[in-house]
Amino acid sequence: MAVQATESTPSVALGPAVALSCRECGERFPLGPIFACQECFGPLEIAYALPSGDPEALKKQIEAGPANIWRYAPLLPVPADVADKPNLNPGFTKLVKADRLAAELGVTGGLYVKDDSGNPTHSFKDRVVAIAVEAARAFGFTTLSCSSTGNLAGAVGAAARRAGLKSCVFIPHDLEPGKVVMAAVYGGDLVAIEGNYDDVNRFCSELIGDPLGEGWGFVNVNLRPYYGEGSKTLAYEICEQLGWRLPDQLVIPIASGSQLTKIDKGLKELIALGLVEDKPYKIFGAQAEGCSPVSAAFKAGHEVVKPQKPNTIAKSLAIGNPADGPYVLDIARRTGGAVEDVTDPQIVDAIKLLARTEGIFAETAGGVTVGVTRKLIENGVLDPSLTTVVLNTGDGLKTLDAVASGPTATIRPDLDAFRAAGLAG
Amino acid sequence: MAVQATESTPSVALGPAVALSCRECGERFPLGPIFACQECFGPLEIAYALPSGDPEALKKQIEAGPANIWRYAPLLPVPADVADKPNLNPGFTKLVKADRLAAELGVTGGLYVKDDSGNPTHSFKDRVVAIAVEAARAFGFTTLSCSSTGNLAGAVGAAARRAGLKSCVFIPHDLEPGKVVMAAVYGGDLVAIEGNYDDVNRFCSELIGDPLGEGWGFVNVNLRPYYGEGSKTLAYEICEQLGWRLPDQLVIPIASGSQLTKIDKGLKELIALGLVEDKPYKIFGAQAEGCSPVSAAFKAGHEVVKPQKPNTIAKSLAIGNPADGPYVLDIARRTGGAVEDVTDPQIVDAIKLLARTEGIFAETAGGVTVGVTRKLIENGVLDPSLTTVVLNTGDGLKTLDAVASGPTATIRPDLDAFRAAGLAG
Repeated sequence: MAVQATESTPSVALGPAVALSCRECGERFPLGPIFACQECFGPLEIAYALPSGDPEALKKQIEAGPANIWRYAPLLPVPADVADKPNLNPGFTKLVKADRLAAELGVTGGLYVKDDSGNPTHSFKDRVVAIAVEAARAFGFTTLSCSSTGNLAGAVGAAARRAGLKSCVFIPHDLEPGKVVMAAVYGGDLVAIEGNYDDVNRFCSELIGDPLGEGWGFVNVNLRPYYGEGSKTLAYEICEQLGWRLPDQLVIPIASGSQLTKIDKGLKELIALGLVEDKPYKIFGAQAEGCSPVSAAFKAGHEVVKPQKPNTIAKSLAIGNPADGPYVLDIARRTGGAVEDVTDPQIVDAIKLLARTEGIFAETAGGVTVGVTRKLIENGVLDPSLTTVVLNTGDGLKTLDAVASGPTATIRPDLDAFRAAGLAG
Repeated sequence: MAVQATESTPSVALGPAVALSCRECGERFPLGPIFACQECFGPLEIAYALPSGDPEALKKQIEAGPANIWRYAPLLPVPADVADKPNLNPGFTKLVKADRLAAELGVTGGLYVKDDSGNPTHSFKDRVVAIAVEAARAFGFTTLSCSSTGNLAGAVGAAARRAGLKSCVFIPHDLEPGKVVMAAVYGGDLVAIEGNYDDVNRFCSELIGDPLGEGWGFVNVNLRPYYGEGSKTLAYEICEQLGWRLPDQLVIPIASGSQLTKIDKGLKELIALGLVEDKPYKIFGAQAEGCSPVSAAFKAGHEVVKPQKPNTIAKSLAIGNPADGPYVLDIARRTGGAVEDVTDPQIVDAIKLLARTEGIFAETAGGVTVGVTRKLIENGVLDPSLTTVVLNTGDGLKTLDAVASGPTATIRPDLDAFRAAGLAG
């Protein structure tokens, strides 16, 4: 007779994770590859039995851990021996003190860029996928899959190969070349869908209900409750890298909105665990004007998000119907933050501003957060006298067409030609 | 009266560096922006007063340092407070245990990939430039410059901006788009030269002797003795990440050959300092067949290198007249290693092999080292029963055209179309 999984004896060993819990009605379910509440269809998230006891001892344990997200394994839905398994070991990326950018923006309270372009496939997606891989292993899936605006496709392709899993990922047909090649090069199946991201997403939802998709772990569908938790590590790292201190303000990009909600969850956990002082923080969401459903709802005072048809160079944020939109609105309002958007030209300007001040080449999503930070300061919404962390979640090499920078001059190899170009000194 | 710089009181504070020393005749000179021996025109390198005393205490000091190259500041020509200055903080990249690649290649003694694509601008050049920036500061240069096959241009552009220096970099006119944009986006001057890398290099040598180049720090010309030392950190990291142990075999790409010689220097320093056990190691050099002057000389038993006109997709290694070629030959022979080359199709195969086994997307230079490793094993030259470290010095996103991977299929967003594509399962 099969043993019935219960919270006290979960059927899978995923560290401190004890159950799935409905974010709407609170109903709990045993850990498994499900993502919607069987009572109210609300989204499920992980419920934990987090470590109790001396916060200083937990800090020491974390600080003695590996220089990647597995240092936070006691707070994540992963097996205790996760660091010994073959995976990409993402995370613990640089928190850059951005003094030259701060000077340009007028920030006096300390400005930091959390630069996730340093991850293995150069976006924050490596974090969430690493957690999903552990769930896939726990549930016996042998193929890893996803719908993707590009970064996730590369992250899934790479992580699957390192873990020895098969992969089949789905992307819109019109992505940037860098993202397409990066998704394809790892050798798993890559399927381009004639449609936008929301079409791809709908297709995957159909596939998961069909025998064709049986045995497949879709990281952002049936593994979504696990996957999403990877974004908590951004909150942990930011606070640890600030010396176990909460920032006053965070500027976070919004695609589905999941990342923003999980960073908030991570910050609250650190407070509850006594790892940081309990004090207020404000969370600001950033969108591109060409896909700004959450920003529009925030400004209109709505509690729900009206879907939009995306049209922006920030393709990694081009989700017109963001699943976590209402939760983002709630967090921005509850913490005293805001949601704002910037135009495509403002995104490009912000990419160049970050590159020229800090030597960080961000993808368009990083242009969105830096651009929104500038706009929020100009509008008096973000307080420049407070400690502020801006996220760069991806890499400029994947969105080269957006910036179109080239040589200042092209010359013959002689000094006269160089002199004539007028660049010296 | 100006104080005369001497070895006991150097005019600049660059940590344990005490002088410049000629690699040919041994003549010593005070630390300064010079690169050729004033007696015999031999290349200059840094002479150190390295720490003496308890190796265990030095290990502890290093391990307590930051997760970047500055943990090795006591062994580098940099000021003691280098970690507090604005710079890109490169290094301490992942040493990946590559078990799936090892299985494909038949390596049983432990195979590791040192993956320098994790550096800030995604190549090992961030290491050498970081050291050059400190030298530029020490000597009062306000413009950072270089000749570059692409990776260095981006590294110099980014590092200069973070450090608040101007930059003017020179590249061949036919580089990969990713490298051109990355070199340009930081906002310094970028000059494309109608010619190949050797033409660019010759041009820079002229410029440095001309009033036009006055006050400029050319990282790979007048700052070369400092710059080159950055590659030692690869040796330090590999050994520390192996648990303060020397690998048995290393496979290192050859462009100018500087990196390979400095890794050898770093390994010898670790032995001299007692940080690792003194035991033999073999160093293997890797080139593309389309630019294989050192490999050709090795195979012919020559001690000098006959220049070639490069023609290969591995543009970051396309130096037809490699300055350190003779030293590379000497090291390969002295350690019992070899120098080998692979064709462009073999480079592409190796990039895909590394991606499909380990989820690492290397640039062409990484394809060269992995391809050469495979060839050396097949030829019985590299011993698969020994611990082997292969370097990946760059990022596949910068050489996208080389791999030309794309979607497996492009379909309408419906299940019938997916079924017809025949990918399921």
